[in-house]
Amino acid sequence: MTLHTFFTRSPIVPPPFEAVSKEIGADVEFYGLVRELEHGHPLAGLHYEAYEPMALKQITRIFTLLAEAHPVAGVTWIHRLGWVPVGEASLFLRVQSAHRAEALNFCALAIDAMKRDVPIWKTAQTA
Amino acid sequence: MTLHTFFTRSPIVPPPFEAVSKEIGADVEFYGLVRELEHGHPLAGLHYEAYEPMALKQITRIFTLLAEAHPVAGVTWIHRLGWVPVGEASLFLRVQSAHRAEALNFCALAIDAMKRDVPIWKTAQTA
Repeated sequence: MTLHTFFTRSPIVPPPFEAVSKEIGADVEFYGLVRELEHGHPLAGLHYEAYEPMALKQITRIFTLLAEAHPVAGVTWIHRLGWVPVGEASLFLRVQSAHRAEALNFCALAIDAMKRDVPIWKTAQTA
Repeated sequence: MTLHTFFTRSPIVPPPFEAVSKEIGADVEFYGLVRELEHGHPLAGLHYEAYEPMALKQITRIFTLLAEAHPVAGVTWIHRLGWVPVGEASLFLRVQSAHRAEALNFCALAIDAMKRDVPIWKTAQTA
């Protein structure tokens, strides 16, 4: 599995699309966007912080384990830090695999595990 | 639900990213790519044909039904027809929803239903 993981403090720009091999049949791209309403309160945006070295280590560990059950060929994970206004992406995840089930399952499980186990915090800022 | 569906005979270019509302928290984008090997035989590509009016009617019917169980806010579906070389996309599906589970589930089920029930055919062309 080819794995690229990084943080950015600028708006997320996904790397140009390129299949990691001629055996890729499915490419799933997930954007997590900041919504205006959280628990009923209007937000201007969210502020994200991370313990970066630990977070990247955890992400690698989680994705490597997940790939044993859901074999995928390529994963790109980008998380934005700092201030992210409503409507912009805080998370980008690209998963490529031969068949769609693996990529879709990996994507869903990877985000669940990330939210649960990776030291990234958000602080709401009201509008 | 905002629904855009169309066929193209050119390489798929996804419409510019735009959230259909400020309540979109998840945007899932799926690319179905032509793989080099199908049943062990190397391909140069696939040739796609559709009974277009029926296919678009079926897609609308399937997506509308699916959205009752998996509420999503916006769906864009693009299928390429004619010759599609290995490594290029024959299918693009963008699904936007407030939370990620709906968009991911909708995406998986929509492709399953499309492959089963929509009159689109492919013919393999060997390398």
